[in-house]
Amino acid sequence: MLVTNGKKLLQSSKTDAIYVSCEFLLRYVTGLDPENGCAIVDETGTTLYTDMRYMEAAEKLFKGTDVTPVLYKQSDVQSRLAGYNSVGVSFDWTSHVEYLALEKAGVKMQNVDEGFRAAMAVKNEWELAQIQKACDIAEESFLALLPEIKEGMTETEVAALLEYNMRKRGAQGLAFPTIVAFGAHAAVPHHETGETKLSFGDEILIDFGCRVNGYCSDITRTFLFGDDNKHEEFKKAYQAVLTAHTLVKEQAKSGMTGAQVDAIARTYLQEQGYGELFTHSLGHGIGLNVHEFPYVSKNRDCVLEDNMVFSDEPGVYKQGEYGIRIEDTITLQNGKVKSFMSKTDRNLIIL
Amino acid sequence: MLVTNGKKLLQSSKTDAIYVSCEFLLRYVTGLDPENGCAIVDETGTTLYTDMRYMEAAEKLFKGTDVTPVLYKQSDVQSRLAGYNSVGVSFDWTSHVEYLALEKAGVKMQNVDEGFRAAMAVKNEWELAQIQKACDIAEESFLALLPEIKEGMTETEVAALLEYNMRKRGAQGLAFPTIVAFGAHAAVPHHETGETKLSFGDEILIDFGCRVNGYCSDITRTFLFGDDNKHEEFKKAYQAVLTAHTLVKEQAKSGMTGAQVDAIARTYLQEQGYGELFTHSLGHGIGLNVHEFPYVSKNRDCVLEDNMVFSDEPGVYKQGEYGIRIEDTITLQNGKVKSFMSKTDRNLIIL
Repeated sequence: MLVTNGKKLLQSSKTDAIYVSCEFLLRYVTGLDPENGCAIVDETGTTLYTDMRYMEAAEKLFKGTDVTPVLYKQSDVQSRLAGYNSVGVSFDWTSHVEYLALEKAGVKMQNVDEGFRAAMAVKNEWELAQIQKACDIAEESFLALLPEIKEGMTETEVAALLEYNMRKRGAQGLAFPTIVAFGAHAAVPHHETGETKLSFGDEILIDFGCRVNGYCSDITRTFLFGDDNKHEEFKKAYQAVLTAHTLVKEQAKSGMTGAQVDAIARTYLQEQGYGELFTHSLGHGIGLNVHEFPYVSKNRDCVLEDNMVFSDEPGVYKQGEYGIRIEDTITLQNGKVKSFMSKTDRNLIIL
Repeated sequence: MLVTNGKKLLQSSKTDAIYVSCEFLLRYVTGLDPENGCAIVDETGTTLYTDMRYMEAAEKLFKGTDVTPVLYKQSDVQSRLAGYNSVGVSFDWTSHVEYLALEKAGVKMQNVDEGFRAAMAVKNEWELAQIQKACDIAEESFLALLPEIKEGMTETEVAALLEYNMRKRGAQGLAFPTIVAFGAHAAVPHHETGETKLSFGDEILIDFGCRVNGYCSDITRTFLFGDDNKHEEFKKAYQAVLTAHTLVKEQAKSGMTGAQVDAIARTYLQEQGYGELFTHSLGHGIGLNVHEFPYVSKNRDCVLEDNMVFSDEPGVYKQGEYGIRIEDTITLQNGKVKSFMSKTDRNLIIL
């Protein structure tokens, strides 16, 4: 059953009430993200203000939770907010226009971005279950895609088929635009999927993910479309990336900083001579946003805790030649890494 | 070839320079929407500040335009902005955090939301061509979907197939979450596509659209999956909605207000006894956002001009029974309506 997070956010903010109006924060405190709406949380519970269109769904969804749906009226919301001694607001996710309107209405706002970020990084059981579903759909869709990949298909066609597979299996939508890169395109970490056609011997890198109830999955697999015996360097690098990826799963522990976990993969790749070619961070937090707190990156001292969810995605990129990235969405449970992904092989697949 | 809109926005703002940082405004002034970036436009041209990942694509795309890509450095951007006497900023699309940072850096900001909205409503030829492509893909995908619809399919399966058709034909993504509603679900204008299965005689309402280079299409078709001879009232209402939709195309003229155009459909539906059942506005502007200026709605006095793009979507909804909406994306050319949609029939389709 839906577990909402209004109380948790309120506690993180140390204010009398919190006010949220952007989609993902509405989803976080109510389980719904209406096109128009806002929510107020105080010690008595959570109120979702939205329009008629969402009332039926809201009343059904909110049974057994602390959320009450109410028809939105700007003056009601503003006068209620003005009655609190302090209202926690995410300044990052509030437009300056909205800030000015609240200020004019006499609302005493405090920026609670930092508390929100820290609270949202630690997932509850319901959130972990949504992420697990999103990961299952992503992996199953990848497995269904593999036998459909044929010579001459474009990157866009492969992406379209993979996205169809996810949607058919119940994904609500994409977590981010799917990256399909053939051949040397894989060396561009954020390659824009295009009309390049697949040839025998090409490497294929696919970075993709979907959403379930707003929560994201994020996965990358790199493999070969046939073996033309010209991939010795690629294969050597692949093993190095795979080992780096696996070492993180074995050695990362709750209580380490993002920088320490990043260093597990980075140090190994440096030792193997790939240090310069690992051009990005090891990972990022995953939740209602595909990139969120915590950062798993050098120079980041945020401490990783049980029930945080983040990516383990070392990569090696040789411009004009090849790119390799192996990524799972993982979490920490009882101090150790648990991957949400168990259905697809990380060993090099040669189609 | 890409036509960028930096100069046009600058003129609309009446400031020495404009600063944009949200995705769709970046796309509007540069043709690109990098994950991280911002742009400054002044009388010398447009500068896109972004990271290394986008440099190659940017240099290729910007040939022949007034846009120059530069590596992003916050201090460079802030000190340049602080040198202007006035900088136009969209307060609606700037977070309060970003506003505070710019203010602290000594940037003299003016809110130019209104000028931006008005300028963006009038499309140039390149923009009209992108919208035409997005509309072509949507209609062709709908035509390819029809023979694939079978009894027992779920709303989600139909949506997945339609989205696959659009993606395969080159759509970059969806304009908004696809609505597929079977039977009485169609009476809910923003029905959430679900697991309901299709039965013989059901009506089907599909509201969908895709993106090409950021620009949206928006289309709704309502039809029957077989005729069980129980749809007399539905068919009568369908004809009324179709006539309302068609009257707008015949009678709307440049120079009319949004309210006047809305009234063309509303008055007719009232005369036919459906006034109470037409529960939303006739239409909304369409561009880089699927809902934008101008409003085609009662009580809206914005004047509709040549090269504005908006929807013509009258609807009639009888709760628990049926819902009908017929929507085209249209524009005004030489004073008169021109639809972007010509491939699909508006007369009632019975599969």
